[in-house]
Formats: sequence, C-alpha cells, structure tokens
Amino acid sequence: MSEQALRLDEAELRGLLDGRWAHVREQVRDLLRGEQFAPVHGLSLEEHRDRTFTQLKALAKTDLPTYGFPESVGGNDDVGASVVGFEMLVNDLSLMVKMGVQWGLFGGAINALGTERHHAEYLPDVMSLELPGCYAMTETGHGSDVQSLGTTATYDPDTEEFVVHTPDESARKDYIGNAARDGRMAVVFAQLRTQGQEHGVHALLVPIRDEQGEPMPGVRIGDCGHKAGLNGVDNGRLEFDHVRVPRANLLDRYGSVAPDGTYSSPIENKNRRFFTMLGTLIRGRISVAGGAGSAAKAALAIAIRYGDTRRQFTRPSDDGGPEREVRILDYLAHQRKLLPALARTYGLHFAQEELVSRLHELSLAPERDEHAQRELESRAAGLKAVATWHATRTIQTCREACGGAGYMSANRLPQLKADSDIFTTFEGDNTVLLQQLTKALLTHFKDSFGDLDQLGLARFMAGKVFETVIERTAARPLIDRLIAASPGRGEEVSLYNRGWQLELLEDREKHIVEGLAGRLRKARKDGGDAFEVFNHAQDHVLNAGRAHMDRVVLEAFVAGIDRCGDSSTAKLLNRVCDLYVLSVVEEDRAWFLEHERLSTSRAKAVTQAVNELCRGLRPYAVQLVDAFGLRDEWLAAPIALGDEHARQGDPLPARD
Amino acid sequence: MSEQALRLDEAELRGLLDGRWAHVREQVRDLLRGEQFAPVHGLSLEEHRDRTFTQLKALAKTDLPTYGFPESVGGNDDVGASVVGFEMLVNDLSLMVKMGVQWGLFGGAINALGTERHHAEYLPDVMSLELPGCYAMTETGHGSDVQSLGTTATYDPDTEEFVVHTPDESARKDYIGNAARDGRMAVVFAQLRTQGQEHGVHALLVPIRDEQGEPMPGVRIGDCGHKAGLNGVDNGRLEFDHVRVPRANLLDRYGSVAPDGTYSSPIENKNRRFFTMLGTLIRGRISVAGGAGSAAKAALAIAIRYGDTRRQFTRPSDDGGPEREVRILDYLAHQRKLLPALARTYGLHFAQEELVSRLHELSLAPERDEHAQRELESRAAGLKAVATWHATRTIQTCREACGGAGYMSANRLPQLKADSDIFTTFEGDNTVLLQQLTKALLTHFKDSFGDLDQLGLARFMAGKVFETVIERTAARPLIDRLIAASPGRGEEVSLYNRGWQLELLEDREKHIVEGLAGRLRKARKDGGDAFEVFNHAQDHVLNAGRAHMDRVVLEAFVAGIDRCGDSSTAKLLNRVCDLYVLSVVEEDRAWFLEHERLSTSRAKAVTQAVNELCRGLRPYAVQLVDAFGLRDEWLAAPIALGDEHARQGDPLPARD
Repeated sequence: MSEQALRLDEAELRGLLDGRWAHVREQVRDLLRGEQFAPVHGLSLEEHRDRTFTQLKALAKTDLPTYGFPESVGGNDDVGASVVGFEMLVNDLSLMVKMGVQWGLFGGAINALGTERHHAEYLPDVMSLELPGCYAMTETGHGSDVQSLGTTATYDPDTEEFVVHTPDESARKDYIGNAARDGRMAVVFAQLRTQGQEHGVHALLVPIRDEQGEPMPGVRIGDCGHKAGLNGVDNGRLEFDHVRVPRANLLDRYGSVAPDGTYSSPIENKNRRFFTMLGTLIRGRISVAGGAGSAAKAALAIAIRYGDTRRQFTRPSDDGGPEREVRILDYLAHQRKLLPALARTYGLHFAQEELVSRLHELSLAPERDEHAQRELESRAAGLKAVATWHATRTIQTCREACGGAGYMSANRLPQLKADSDIFTTFEGDNTVLLQQLTKALLTHFKDSFGDLDQLGLARFMAGKVFETVIERTAARPLIDRLIAASPGRGEEVSLYNRGWQLELLEDREKHIVEGLAGRLRKARKDGGDAFEVFNHAQDHVLNAGRAHMDRVVLEAFVAGIDRCGDSSTAKLLNRVCDLYVLSVVEEDRAWFLEHERLSTSRAKAVTQAVNELCRGLRPYAVQLVDAFGLRDEWLAAPIALGDEHARQGDPLPARD
Repeated sequence: MSEQALRLDEAELRGLLDGRWAHVREQVRDLLRGEQFAPVHGLSLEEHRDRTFTQLKALAKTDLPTYGFPESVGGNDDVGASVVGFEMLVNDLSLMVKMGVQWGLFGGAINALGTERHHAEYLPDVMSLELPGCYAMTETGHGSDVQSLGTTATYDPDTEEFVVHTPDESARKDYIGNAARDGRMAVVFAQLRTQGQEHGVHALLVPIRDEQGEPMPGVRIGDCGHKAGLNGVDNGRLEFDHVRVPRANLLDRYGSVAPDGTYSSPIENKNRRFFTMLGTLIRGRISVAGGAGSAAKAALAIAIRYGDTRRQFTRPSDDGGPEREVRILDYLAHQRKLLPALARTYGLHFAQEELVSRLHELSLAPERDEHAQRELESRAAGLKAVATWHATRTIQTCREACGGAGYMSANRLPQLKADSDIFTTFEGDNTVLLQQLTKALLTHFKDSFGDLDQLGLARFMAGKVFETVIERTAARPLIDRLIAASPGRGEEVSLYNRGWQLELLEDREKHIVEGLAGRLRKARKDGGDAFEVFNHAQDHVLNAGRAHMDRVVLEAFVAGIDRCGDSSTAKLLNRVCDLYVLSVVEEDRAWFLEHERLSTSRAKAVTQAVNELCRGLRPYAVQLVDAFGLRDEWLAAPIALGDEHARQGDPLPARD
C-alpha cells in the first residue's frame, strides 16, 4: 500500500454514496430539521409514542409516503426512493420503523397483495395517514414459520363474509406495530378456509378500531408495553373472536373467493403461491438492511469524531520535547475497533444500493421474472442478515470506544443500539435468513425452492442433484476482468491485488457450498434421517451464507469504486476496500489455512496488512464518516459535535 | 466423549457453585423477595432512582453492608462476603451498582485510604446509610489515566485546610454515582499540593450537600441524566470552586500533611505510592467481574429455559409418523449460540471464586505481600476484562436467541443488557486493563511495575530484560499432574485429554508473551520510537492478555471440578469444561494453525468436537443454568417461567 497522502474529494464521495436516489436523501436532509425531529431520550412510553406519531403526521404531509405507491392512486411508483427515504430517518429509529409499518408493511401489503379496488379504496388514506394500520403477520407461537400461522379466515357464503378467528394463544398476533395505540385497520394473515378446504395463508383487511379509537367488536387488543428500544412504536397484540369482514376485504391478487365460496388463484401450487405472496413483501427486509446501515453509520460518525479528538495518556517523548496526550484514534487498538467496521459499512452501503436498484428495476419490469425475483429474495435475506448483525456489533463497539460518554443517552449511542437491536431478529430472524440464502445457493434457484425453514431443504434433499452457482453481482464484466488479470494464487501475489482477493473469496464460497452439498448428499445416501443430517451441518450451512455475502459485498464495493469520478478519491476507496476484504480474510483465516488457501506466513501477513491499512486510513477517518451526509442534528451527541474539541482546545473541522 | 447419560446431582452442583460464601448467597436469596425487590422496567429516571434508594435503605438494615468493614467499627471484616453479596444483587443491577458505590467504593476508599479516626468517625454512618457518599475519581478529561487527574487539593497552613479546586472542565468529576441526587459527601481524588510541592493523587473527604440536600458552598453539582441503563443510579458531575475542608479530611494512610504543611508518606516513591493506593481499591474491579457473571447467568437462564421449550418448524418425519415442532434448543445453531457461552460462564465462575478467595486471604494476611498483591491486581484486571466482555456478548446473544420476546422489557433481557453494558468500560476500560495485565506478564511482577497505561510500559522497555512467567493458578499440583500425564502433543492425543488441553493453552500463552517481548526488544534495539514500537504491537499485547486469561480460567475450571463430590456430576462438568476449552481453541484456531500447534485436520476435528459437545450437553442445559441458583422472581421473564410451557402444553420442570 502506498503511504503517500491522498486528497479526498468530499463532494465526489458524497455524490457517489448518495447514489441513484441522491435527491431523496437531500429531501430528507432538508425535511428532518429542528426541534420536531431532534433525537430524544428518556421519554415515557406515552410521550415517545405521541412524539413519533406526530412526526409521522408531519411526514404524511410531504411526498415521502407517495414513493412506494402506484401513480393510479396518487403515488410516485418509485420503490427505490421509498426504501432510501426509509433508511434516512436515522434521527429517531422509532419514526423510521413507524413509517415502515404504515407505508411499507401495511400500505405495501395492500399494494402488493390487493387489487385495484383495494388500491383505490384504501391507499390514499394510507398515504395521508387518515387510515393508520397494522401488518398482522407474526403470531406468539409462529414467528419464523409463517406458513404455520394459526389464525383462520373461514368463508361464510350465507353472508358473504370471512370469519377471522384466533383459535388459541399461539395464534395471537404479537409484536404488531401500530396495534397498541394508533392502528385502525390491520392486514391480517390467516389460513384461508372455504368450502371445507384449506388454501394456505392469505391476507385480509380487518378493522380493529373505530373512529373513536375503541376496539371493534370481537377484537381484543393488548399492549406489548415497554421494549428495549423503539418505544415510539406502539407494538401490540391482536386476538380475533369470530370477527366478520366482507368478502371484498380479502386481498385477492393471488387468491380469490367467489360469492359462492369457490376458491381460485393464478398460482396452482399452494406452496408456490405462499412464497410468491411472501416474495412481494421483500421490500421490508431490504429497508431494514438499509436502516441498519444508517444506524451503523451514525454510530461510527459519533465514535470516530470523538476518537479523533479525545485524548488520553501522554506520549513519552524520546527526545525530551514537549509532551501531549495522544488522540485515542491514534492507538492501533482503537483503530482496529473502528476502522474495519467503517470499511465494512462502506461495502455494505454499495451492496445495499445495488440491491435497492434491483428491487426497483424488478418493480418496473412489465413481466415477472421468476429467476430474478428469487435471486433478489436470496440477496435480500443475506444482506439483511449481515447488515443488521454488522450494525449491532458496530454500534456496541462504538459505545465501548466512547467509554462512559458513550453510555450517556445524550450521546445517542445507547438509543441507536437499543433501537436497532431488534433488526437482527425481525423481518426474518437472521439465522433463518442465512439458511434460506444457502438453500438458494444449493438449489440453483430451481423451482423447488420453497419454504423459509431449514427443514424445507431437508425435505427437498432426498435424491436431488446439487449444483453450485456463483451468481455474479452487477459488476460482472469488471469482476471477471480483475480476476483474469490476477497473476495467480501464489505467495508472490500482492495481498492488495484485487483480482486475487476476488478470486480468494469466490473460491472459498464455492468450496464451502460444494462441500456442503456433497456432505448432505452423502449423509442421506448413508441413510441418515433428513432432519438430523441437516441439523448436524447447520454451522456449515450458516458459513456458506456468510461466505456468499462476503463476496457479494466485495463485488459491490469494487463496482462502487468503479463509479467514482475522482481518481485520488477512488484510490482512497480502494484502500478502504482493501481493509474490508483483508479484515474479512483475517477473521476467517482459520478456514483459509485449514483449506490451504493461505500459507501460515501469508496468513500472518494479512494481519500485518490490516494493521497497516488501519494506520494508513486513520487520517481520513473523519472525512470518511462525514461523507455519509448525516446531519449533525441527527447525530446530536455533544461528544461528536465539538464539546470535546472545545475542551481540548482543538480546532473543530468545518461541517455542514 | 462418551454419549452415555449422566445423572446430575443438583444439590451437589449448587453447593459447588455457591462455594465458600454459600451462606451469603443463601442470605441474599432469602432477602431479595417480593414486590420491593422485583425487577422493574419503564420507570422514569426519578421513579427508578427513588426505588433504588429505597431498596438500598432496606439493605442497610441487614448485615450485608457490614461484611466489607472492620470489626472495630461494627463490621464483619469479611471482604470475600462483601464481593459475593454484591454480585448476587442481580434482581436489579441499579441496586447492585448503587450498593457498590456506597459500601464498596465510597466506604471502601475511606476504609482503605483512611486511618482509624476516619473509620470511627465515618464508617458507622456509611454502613447505616446515614451518610450517602460518592467516589469522585473519574474526570471528564481523565478516565483511564487517573494519574493525570486535574483536581487540586492545596494545603493552606494558615487555616489548616485543604483547598479543593477544579481548574478547568477537563478536571470536572464526571459519571460519579450517588452525586446527582443522594450523596452528601465525596471521596475526592485530587493532586495534593503543599509547601509548593506536588505529591500526586490523594483522596480527601469533601462534603457536597448539607442535611437539606442543598449543594455545599462552592460545590457545583450536575446531573448526567438519562443513561443506556442503570438509571436507578444517580450519576452526576462535581465541580469545586476553592472548597475548603479541614486538614483531617485527608485520607492519610499513604500520605499525610502536618499542620505546618510538611508532607510525609510511608512510601517514598511517588509512582509506587500512587499504585499502592490504587491497588487497595481493587475490590471494586473484582466485584464488577462477579456482577457481570451474574448478569450473564441470568440471561442464559432465561434464554436456555425458553429455548428448551419454544418450538418452531415441524420436523419432517422420514417414516410417516406424527410430526411436532422442534424445540429451538435442539437446533445445532441455537446450541452453538448458547452452550459454549454457558461453558465459559462456568469457567469464569470458578475463576471468580478463586480470585475472591485470594483477595480475601490477602485482606486477612498480617503482612502486606507485594508480590501477591500485584499478582492479584493483574488477575483482577484480566478477569474483569474478559468477564465483562463475555457478559455483554452473551446477553446480546441471549436477546437474539429469544427473538421478539427477548426484545420485550418484561422478559428482562433488555435491562440486563443495558445495565451491564457499562461494565466493560467502567472500573477500568477493558482494553486498558488487558494491557496492564500483559505488562505484568512481561515484567514478571518486577518492582518497576507501574502506571496503568500502555505508555508506562513503553517508557519502561528501554534496556530491560523481559522474562516470561506462567504463573500457576491455585490448582498448581493438580494441573502439573495432568500435564505430566498428557501423552504428548501429537495427533494421536484425544482432543478431550485435559493434560493436552492445559498444555496447549499454556504453550500458546508462553509463545505469545515471549514473542511479544522479543519483538518489542528488537524494535527498540533497531532504534524505534518507544511509543510507536508499542503502538504497532498493540494487537499482539491484547492477544497476550487474552491468552493468559483463557489459561487461568481453564485451570480454575479444572480445580473447581476437582472439588466436586459427586462423580457423575463431575463427569458432566468435565464435558462442560471440554466445551469451554475446545471452543476457545476453535475461536483462535487460526493462531494454532499459524504456529503449527494444530494440523489442518485436527483443527477441523476441534470444530466437530464442539458440535458434538453441544449436542451431548443439550439435555442438561436447563439443569446447568438452574444450578446458578438465581431466584425465579429475579429472572422475572414470563418466557422463562412457564408461559411458553403452558402455551405449548409442555410440562414445566419443578423449580424452587
């Protein structure tokens, strides 16, 4: 790595990071200002709920809600913008999630699963917040296993109504955002029954409160109460006691019931229908990955600005010169805490941008492309898992890196940590999602791709032929070129050679996935019980998903740098990318050693390289977090906004 | 590993874990019952502070506060009991910390740094809580670097008073427990000046509030406000504007000032005096390690009980038999999240017991043993660091393992996580503490052992000869015997051979420490700047401390099992110990590969063994957490107390 100083073109970098929906980012930056949107802490449950709902009402007056909805109802039909708008609400993650519930989940389900009459009847009020609503999928006993939901919707042809019912406590809707206080209607996911037959999970619109806010007859509403974070969101529980709704309330894009009770669907296969319906709701998962990224960025911005100026312990002077305390970000240990996390945050940012673009393109495509859709779902599952785990780990590290100051609510890190903590397990539990991704890798996106659970795969395994795919990311030709230019796998290749790095991660993924396929097949051939065989390999399954995502993120990073219009800035980003990939390799170097992809001396050199990259990037750390373009008033933390500079008598770098 | 079923003698195991201060644990179990001590959540700052202070007053009426104080003032002189009593207050960590501030830090400082007249005058009121107090060490600009505190205490011989003063914002006392609301007096650490000379940091008693609770003249009190957790503790800030206190208020065991201003001390060397004074306060650090252990135990108890009964996804039946959903703790991925953490929690428990015993023995020794004292300080530094990081990681994992339920405050995990989060950075920042430990390893506890910072070592390095020590833990003869019985280091030795395991960890530690010493020496010989040389090796320094602690914990674990009176239970504990050590090896297997301590096939076998141990221990997991003896009402979480059992129609195992 060259040690010469690089000039970072801040405008260029900001533009690169802002990406395709830069105008949305700018809009939100402009919108979320002043006391009304300032981060808060220490509010009571009710105060926080009030504040968040008031903020949401203010957003409802802007065109932010319109992005995700069709032009036919006054929307903007710009799905990408809706996801980017969501992820920018980092001033208070309660607002982010409340918005996601109202316009992403509730409105999104009506949009995706309903038909034009539902759109016309409900979506305008959804957008304007006249009709606050819930997305009632999860049940107390059924979290990850959506296919096994217990709520029933039984069609009664005599009255042309559905009877929505909660048969037992397991089937109670739980953790439902907007349910405890504000929601007036819910999209309820239930097992559809008609003419004595079960047709699987479908969604219906069920009014839960009247105009006065009183629960509707037969609807029991509970309050989940205080949570670790996100207390501005009123999560609640819903139970239905034979609640009747008109036939028209079935969101019937993928399954409808005629007045006489005859069921019909454009998708014959029940399993496939279920996963098609679920697939249309993928935006929520992608949004969460983006929101996690924003939370990590905010935490890093706070911790890195603080570490850049906070000083502790005097540096001994060898030559008897004047002593001054050392800035804590000058310590290698501190760099090691924050800079690899920053590098990964950059990589995840580019991967997210790519994923949002794909989602957006698919939403505009005139015909549904099954293969592309499934690839999108797998990518979304994987990115959501790695991005949210990364956020949780990173914010935790940032808290610790700020010591006691990081524990004070005024410095925002506690709230960022607590609020985003649930991201790892809602909108799909990360462990389940990684398995879903690996399953897709194993089955090469074949039609048989199905259930969300690991067991679906276990069932599927018997007798199938596995085939591994290394699906390329957007930058296919570029990546191929870089790999082709790599001088090989030998010891002599520079650790900083991008082609070598790309090939190294690709080779690891391929080996892990192929090894897993072989292992599963063999165990089955040897007569192993399907569940046991799969369960014994579960750590291997999760590793495969992780390895895949490491490669995907690297490729997106490389493609992102390729779009950078300033060569000096691009060089700097290349160093950040080196730090990302070499810290990935360092973390898993046991694997590379075990599989003889790295010699012992080369593995040690990787650790050394990570140290050197940390040192080399340290002078740019503050600029690199400032490029995220998070407003100072969203960061709010006094330790990030000049308090420490003032105390230390250090000049404060100029910012927005 | 034998797969045969083992019988766990619950009483025996409980007795083993309760250990030497079992009577204190029983006392606290008896004491903390009912509504008054029940965990709470969602309180406002003031409500929580009220509640915690009220609880503390109730504890003041028991003999819990007396343990840590001398018999001369009505105390019990049982330091070990005071530490164990502290760690048991897991019903609400705010109470734990508030108690620690009052009786451990405030009272402990008067006890350790004061002389008999201070004891007689203040300690009875400290114990009874007539005199609530603060431990005012940390300053806004001086956290880890205590030696550089800015507060001054200047002696004025004319009035025979000390003038306590805060020269600038950096010197403001910060994060001080008991300061914002309840404290009436503070032990203030300040730079002592008399007759124009500086004598380093000393502690003085400074009244901060009058009987009516109003700040004393010249004392400015701020409120740190809302924090991530521990909101029952009123942390505040203190600034002194030339506040005068009588000469007698100097806690003068290690340094006194005559009426005319003449300074004298039993310890000539200023540096040594400082570290001696600090060393007497080591109990706080040891207590925090214990408290972290309790928090981790509580979280594991909740998550493991829940995982034992929570079901998700139906197991496909190969033979067409009846299907039932799988208990989530039967999934390998779930076992991998929780069981290695449980095994390490056991290891840390035994290491903590050993450390507390040492502290206790030293407190009773008629003569001060410098070598033993420094060993204790190093061990405390290391154990505090690894135990608190383990707790933070483990509680986070437990939260995720409980999904949405784990995010609900009612299920306690959020509060446990938020409250214990600060443990990693208070009472010594973990990163700084690990360096302190490594420094001690490098210097063989030589006299020159000094400052807390890494730079102290950098200064010290020039020209010194390093010598590595593998200090043995309490079980010296047993460990030696086991290592001697190990059949060697070859491939053929069972991974479960304890002697081989012990030698493996010992060898790693020795290699890392010696390698570090050599590297530092060489770099200095080559003319490197002391700070840069040390800073470049900082990751190596931290690894050395971690490797040392891994071995220390293993040895304590082995010694603990040796005390088990039931052979079947001991066998089970040996499996738990195997899981601990093999997951340590797995985590760092890159190192063992890089240094050719493990072959690639043996490294893979370690991963396999961890999987097998998880499966083998899974049936005992609930008994293993129940043995911690945490009352159900402290766990409080409905998901751990039968809610989930009831819903699933599963029988609830009998408990207290």
